[in-house]
Amino acid sequence: MAIKALILNCTLKKSPKESNTEALIKKAVAHYQELGVEAEVVRIIDHNILTGISSDEGQGDEWPMINAKVKSANIIVIATPIWFGVRGSVCQMVMERLSGGYDEADPDTGQYPLYNKVGACIVTGNEDGAHDVCSNTLFNLTHLGATIAPNSDSYWVGEAGPGPSYIEIGQKNLYTNRTISYLTHNTAYMAELLANNPIPTNLKDLDEIAKNVSDSPAKKHVRI
Amino acid sequence: MAIKALILNCTLKKSPKESNTEALIKKAVAHYQELGVEAEVVRIIDHNILTGISSDEGQGDEWPMINAKVKSANIIVIATPIWFGVRGSVCQMVMERLSGGYDEADPDTGQYPLYNKVGACIVTGNEDGAHDVCSNTLFNLTHLGATIAPNSDSYWVGEAGPGPSYIEIGQKNLYTNRTISYLTHNTAYMAELLANNPIPTNLKDLDEIAKNVSDSPAKKHVRI
Amino acid sequence: MAIKALILNCTLKKSPKESNTEALIKKAVAHYQELGVEAEVVRIIDHNILTGISSDEGQGDEWPMINAKVKSANIIVIATPIWFGVRGSVCQMVMERLSGGYDEADPDTGQYPLYNKVGACIVTGNEDGAHDVCSNTLFNLTHLGATIAPNSDSYWVGEAGPGPSYIEIGQKNLYTNRTISYLTHNTAYMAELLANNPIPTNLKDLDEIAKNVSDSPAKKHVRI
Amino acid sequence: MAIKALILNCTLKKSPKESNTEALIKKAVAHYQELGVEAEVVRIIDHNILTGISSDEGQGDEWPMINAKVKSANIIVIATPIWFGVRGSVCQMVMERLSGGYDEADPDTGQYPLYNKVGACIVTGNEDGAHDVCSNTLFNLTHLGATIAPNSDSYWVGEAGPGPSYIEIGQKNLYTNRTISYLTHNTAYMAELLANNPIPTNLKDLDEIAKNVSDSPAKKHVRI
Repeated sequence: MAIKALILNCTLKKSPKESNTEALIKKAVAHYQELGVEAEVVRIIDHNILTGISSDEGQGDEWPMINAKVKSANIIVIATPIWFGVRGSVCQMVMERLSGGYDEADPDTGQYPLYNKVGACIVTGNEDGAHDVCSNTLFNLTHLGATIAPNSDSYWVGEAGPGPSYIEIGQKNLYTNRTISYLTHNTAYMAELLANNPIPTNLKDLDEIAKNVSDSPAKKHVRI
Repeated sequence: MAIKALILNCTLKKSPKESNTEALIKKAVAHYQELGVEAEVVRIIDHNILTGISSDEGQGDEWPMINAKVKSANIIVIATPIWFGVRGSVCQMVMERLSGGYDEADPDTGQYPLYNKVGACIVTGNEDGAHDVCSNTLFNLTHLGATIAPNSDSYWVGEAGPGPSYIEIGQKNLYTNRTISYLTHNTAYMAELLANNPIPTNLKDLDEIAKNVSDSPAKKHVRI
Repeated sequence: MAIKALILNCTLKKSPKESNTEALIKKAVAHYQELGVEAEVVRIIDHNILTGISSDEGQGDEWPMINAKVKSANIIVIATPIWFGVRGSVCQMVMERLSGGYDEADPDTGQYPLYNKVGACIVTGNEDGAHDVCSNTLFNLTHLGATIAPNSDSYWVGEAGPGPSYIEIGQKNLYTNRTISYLTHNTAYMAELLANNPIPTNLKDLDEIAKNVSDSPAKKHVRI
Repeated sequence: MAIKALILNCTLKKSPKESNTEALIKKAVAHYQELGVEAEVVRIIDHNILTGISSDEGQGDEWPMINAKVKSANIIVIATPIWFGVRGSVCQMVMERLSGGYDEADPDTGQYPLYNKVGACIVTGNEDGAHDVCSNTLFNLTHLGATIAPNSDSYWVGEAGPGPSYIEIGQKNLYTNRTISYLTHNTAYMAELLANNPIPTNLKDLDEIAKNVSDSPAKKHVRI
């Protein structure tokens, strides 16, 4: 079975400007190719993605095209620069649009759209913030149904304070090269494992059981 | 094969004081029992865990006993209260001690100690902070080798501002009851899947390849 | 001296859609009016703000108009919804645009554009994430030169899980009403104090001294 | 009027072990001395500080002695290492103990104990996490009543991945040297400004007004 990886480059810069995040993405793509994983990269800022929290924000919105790619991929890699210590605005917008998937749960199982898919995160910044970006982004992906394999983040950041970027320093940081290798190998393995052994949990059934031991939603929000 | 879950209760309060986090843990334990998963709960503050970042901080340190339980479990659940918007100090100390595991990687594969184990997070607080706690904690666990299944966090927090605790409100929040159910079912499935299909990635082999395309660590830190 | 407050509403929804964040902003405006502070609200999404990190991203960019308002205000309040546990994409974009101010430091003192101004944060969400939003946003403002007075955040979030919004619950949460009152009183006082007693620190002079005890930037980034 | 700064070193290592955080603290102390500010450093781990959230956890607890120093200082600097991307467990414990101050508000004004004091944050880590540490810590201090002057954080972190520490790299990072200088100058100025112009806000009076437009707390928590 052919495993597909979709890598969303959330740089703030339109093509053909140089993207440091893309430089690290290319290393992931090379690894995926060696592993027989088909990898596609989409540079979000080159598309007209409307601000919102649904899967389709109407006229001119190109998110539905990207959402279709998300649905057909086994591995979803969110790649982003850091701005002001956290994930960039384009990345945040992508996560907001992905949250529209909550409304597209499987009608039988209630599973969210990223169930049986694998998530990962790639980050570049000239200093500090990678942990915050990766932890929030991977966590959000698990809420949408993704599984996170071990060591599924790879980042480069420089020393404290403004400084040269990933391309300028020569892209030879050993830690980053190690982790991009771990990330690709582990996500590829996990994606195939899940493709062959999909998670059977029926969330709708579990919800019915939970309702019996909970405040009813109707009551819960009445305020006296 | 019998799957084991270890739940570390990181409340700040020693037994026999009432722990809200324990109240939610009990729901997880009940689910695990229905699923045939053996669940053990350790209340960290009742033990003498020394501050540090190694697996054994010497005389009187009870971490090695807990670390042994971590090693024999398939599912590691970090359960903690929120204090000042982030995970409590006992939880942070536990994560620091778990980081000692970096020095206990498998001699052949280089895999960190939580490889082929599954991580999860349970949180209670009287308001705000659960996302921050879960995202950091689950992310840290992936660095140590754990896999995160979908919807592997469950929390209760109240409305903005100080207010009643989880036990005081009656433990009947529907969202919390749903998510504790998802968490237990998904971690149980993933733990068995990984037990039967361990991740084959050899990190040591990947490191050798990475070194060839990287600044050597020796050179990297020379400053001129 | 007349103190001015500029409140940037970073809702994702264009006018005339109902904004929960606006509902809480209105309470701040009422307090400011009682205190004799002139308050202006700008709904960012109604303007054409281009993605980027400079103060002017070129043709069609309306940020320069907003940036002019920032410069003439004494109090800058960032008001935003929470999405996926963190600040929304419009808020993140605003912070990215504000970072263009690093290039507009005072030529004599090197002070960044928000020196002698006061920052604050207003947040609404239907659950969890307010601490993360406020801490990052207020911290970013201090990097740009703002001073943060005590209790300068006000938020409303509901109980764990999806639920009604701030407008739906009736806007009567006591904690939120208390904190919006503290926020406005303390920022008003601090703004006047700083207007009358501007911070004298000359960052350029301090930089010269720091250079003498540091690796030169030129050398620092050479890699051998 | 003599301004006093209290710097709490939250390293995990007991004396006489070398502390990287202490190395950066020493630079702050030198600046404070030049500015005529009296600076005292307390290494928390050398004291018996009990886990808890009150100002006095009973027999053997040395927090009351430190809390007395907090009360008599004008500037409170929290200095901490990063562990696993966030503030260390000793720092988190200190913040938990400081939260006991909520119960020690001024009986007349309701002001929390850090009103009219100034907060700051110093961080060292071998890589990534400083923004997260500083933003949470400074934000927590504002909740307790502290004012945050511009550029009141200073940190050193190395490039992505494990690597040498602050002492090992020679303590010559220009950014860190600049920011420790900004931090000390701005906090010293702000502390004197507040000592001479204390914040007049009466929180108790504001609370009374807020109660009139809010759900009463008694009603708020009744669940039907």
